[in-house]
Amino acid sequence: MAESKALTTRTADFSAWYNEVIARAELADYSPVRGCMVIRPNGYAIWEQMQQALDRMFKDTGHQNAYFPLFIPQSFLSREAEHVEGFAPETAVVTIAGGKELEEPLVVRPTSETIIYSMYAKWIQSYRDLPLLINQWANVVRWELRTRLFLRTTEFLWQEGHTAHASEAEAEAETRQMLGVYRRFAEEWMAMPVITGRKTDSEKFAGALRTYAIEALMQDNKSLQAGTSHNLGQNFARAFEVTYQTSEGSIDFVWNTSWGVSTRLIGGLIMTHSDDSGLVCPPKLAQWQVVIVPIFRTDEERGSVLDAAERLLRELRAAGVRTHLDAREGMKPGAKYYEWEARGVPLRLEIGPRDVAAESAMLARRVGARKESVPMAGLASRIQSEMEAMQIALLEAARERRERASLRGATRAEFIARMEGEGGFVYAGFCGAPTCEAEIKEQTKATIRVLPDEEFRSPKQPTTCMWCGAPSTAEAVWARAY
Amino acid sequence: MAESKALTTRTADFSAWYNEVIARAELADYSPVRGCMVIRPNGYAIWEQMQQALDRMFKDTGHQNAYFPLFIPQSFLSREAEHVEGFAPETAVVTIAGGKELEEPLVVRPTSETIIYSMYAKWIQSYRDLPLLINQWANVVRWELRTRLFLRTTEFLWQEGHTAHASEAEAEAETRQMLGVYRRFAEEWMAMPVITGRKTDSEKFAGALRTYAIEALMQDNKSLQAGTSHNLGQNFARAFEVTYQTSEGSIDFVWNTSWGVSTRLIGGLIMTHSDDSGLVCPPKLAQWQVVIVPIFRTDEERGSVLDAAERLLRELRAAGVRTHLDAREGMKPGAKYYEWEARGVPLRLEIGPRDVAAESAMLARRVGARKESVPMAGLASRIQSEMEAMQIALLEAARERRERASLRGATRAEFIARMEGEGGFVYAGFCGAPTCEAEIKEQTKATIRVLPDEEFRSPKQPTTCMWCGAPSTAEAVWARAY
Repeated sequence: MAESKALTTRTADFSAWYNEVIARAELADYSPVRGCMVIRPNGYAIWEQMQQALDRMFKDTGHQNAYFPLFIPQSFLSREAEHVEGFAPETAVVTIAGGKELEEPLVVRPTSETIIYSMYAKWIQSYRDLPLLINQWANVVRWELRTRLFLRTTEFLWQEGHTAHASEAEAEAETRQMLGVYRRFAEEWMAMPVITGRKTDSEKFAGALRTYAIEALMQDNKSLQAGTSHNLGQNFARAFEVTYQTSEGSIDFVWNTSWGVSTRLIGGLIMTHSDDSGLVCPPKLAQWQVVIVPIFRTDEERGSVLDAAERLLRELRAAGVRTHLDAREGMKPGAKYYEWEARGVPLRLEIGPRDVAAESAMLARRVGARKESVPMAGLASRIQSEMEAMQIALLEAARERRERASLRGATRAEFIARMEGEGGFVYAGFCGAPTCEAEIKEQTKATIRVLPDEEFRSPKQPTTCMWCGAPSTAEAVWARAY
Repeated sequence: MAESKALTTRTADFSAWYNEVIARAELADYSPVRGCMVIRPNGYAIWEQMQQALDRMFKDTGHQNAYFPLFIPQSFLSREAEHVEGFAPETAVVTIAGGKELEEPLVVRPTSETIIYSMYAKWIQSYRDLPLLINQWANVVRWELRTRLFLRTTEFLWQEGHTAHASEAEAEAETRQMLGVYRRFAEEWMAMPVITGRKTDSEKFAGALRTYAIEALMQDNKSLQAGTSHNLGQNFARAFEVTYQTSEGSIDFVWNTSWGVSTRLIGGLIMTHSDDSGLVCPPKLAQWQVVIVPIFRTDEERGSVLDAAERLLRELRAAGVRTHLDAREGMKPGAKYYEWEARGVPLRLEIGPRDVAAESAMLARRVGARKESVPMAGLASRIQSEMEAMQIALLEAARERRERASLRGATRAEFIARMEGEGGFVYAGFCGAPTCEAEIKEQTKATIRVLPDEEFRSPKQPTTCMWCGAPSTAEAVWARAY
């Protein structure tokens, strides 16, 4: 239900604005369980669109879905030393079941490498069983101290891909391929531009050889890690004895990858596009792409307007446009506009008696706020091209915003000023020393988001570390992050 | 990977046969966690087909999806007296999280009435907010002592619908509507005939006013409860204070329903249709509806046969037929046939050099086992009609099998003989006394599956209780059950 109070603005209080956008659009709600959210129908509908698109991309790249248990024996977690160190402190543990204390406590999965690779050990015998390319859609639990709707919740929904390969090169290619899938999804579906690259050792996944990520810059100039893809090397294969007979007859450990995105993406979507009127959702992911609002005063007008609106509804739906007719009685059109704007519907069609007479409708865009009269004839294809244009414009606007907030080749002083001031991405040289990285984090709260891939690197590569002045080993992108 | 050993037959050992069908088709596997299974890609693909079909039916009847937390505060479960009595003994309980003991333990949801209705109390204010029609796809946990793959596992996947209404009549209509959806899904998609009806008080859901179910008879003549729909009355609304302002301005409790089906359906699918060669899957739910097996000896044959096979693959896929081309090298066609039969693929097309020359293919059906040569021209529509015929034939065969195993108007002696002998459904009079019901269960292991709906009742209604001879209050259907 729309409330009449205006939202807190982004400039006034970004964090309050974020929560109010979610509440007003009824995307999610707090639950009685600490740190756990409820994803309401309007929010879940976006997740369903995301799932469908991603699932298709996973299947098109040869992956199959499966489902593994929620519970993991506590001892499994400990088999990979870095992994247990990274995850044990934030686990939820079942100690009682069926009225009895369990002999071995069960961890509610924070991620499923251990349980999945214990099964792969059983399923994989020979090089003929490779590659094994499996994905799972699941809920996971990480006991977080500070939680925020979608961005960091104790329980969240995600997908986790887990693959096994016969060579390091193949595993690396898979890791990079899935990073590319995430990038494509972020850009083409979410209209959210990302930079891709490798994480430093201090930011990589606990147990991975190398972690790659997509990072997006939010409107408050903080970065969001939106998806990760890990080359796990043979670390888990050794821990769970996942071996195979090579084509030459010898026995070797497999090479694994894992990769995931979560409901956190919805938080990223909100913070990339939304404005002080509420949610802005790219057409490709919107639950309703078009809402039709009929306008009438008399009963006679009502009949002809609703007839026209219903014809239009059928026509748009037949053309594959997700369209909703808001025929609620006893609610003024203006109140409906206000509500659908807050809910992020990309396009609105208003139809009154004059529109019916002129065989036209009034088209209002969620972004840009220009209204124009458009003929009924050929409206479905007009709507299609409007949506395509909006999808591209949102991506372009977000990319321009990010570039305006990016600084390349900063000095130490400029870096500090940025991090204490407007924020954003800073590209600069890095000596590669974890001590330098830790010092920067402590003094500026900024972390290295990625060592960017070639395409994102500055034309003029830095030669010295922005912080300590030692020779640079790689350009890095810093930001404060969610 | 196909093993060469023949399956145990159904008549030799139904339970062993069931497990072997699952293993051979790679549908599921045991996990290292007691009672939890892994749903392997071949099994999960069937679940995905089921989900898609059901989800469409739920949305077509006005429901939306959402997601509620996995964890439920232990105190919530206790608020509805019957509910806690029914579920508390089989819960898994998280007592430690983030390295600390929790002040209030969290139950891993065995079902979500309590957590969901606690949110509804927040969301529902007025009659305008009703009906609220929400479904969730989720995992749930019930600590079972004896588990069987798909049929009874500690963790399982399901959907649970939860609705709130302004009147008892509306809630009852919703309960019956969703039972109808389940019946339609079972019959039209799973080709699994069901009888519908009401559960007796001793078999109803803990906390419900009335429970309705669909029951299907498996090939071993035991019944499977395949889906339930509950009219919860105002029981949970009272416990969680879910009230609303009526259109007249007074305050009343809402009326709730809940309904669910689970991965148990896959067990039902297996035990309804499969045979001693392995899985039989109705075309509508098959991961692959058609598999193409190319046959060749020389390199020259290989080229032309694979060309024809690939053309056919494209043609069938373009027609919307889920088709797989099995072009594996170094494996004899016979071994492939054997494997795909065990995996339940409805139709197989074999293409050899002679077929290519004659512009035909050899069509083999999974059921009936007749092979015939069919022309390539128009093959897609031929395949479509073959699949429709198979879908109908499977339902018909299962219905005939069930009717042959059903006895109407049995005497007490006949009843005992049946339950100790061949099993099946027995229709007979029931006095309505829980004591009588309990005695029957203890002496024969048979339970009342449903008090059948009108359509399923015997033409001649019984007048006395089959067991005690007192006047009958309703005809009942008994069986031993899973």
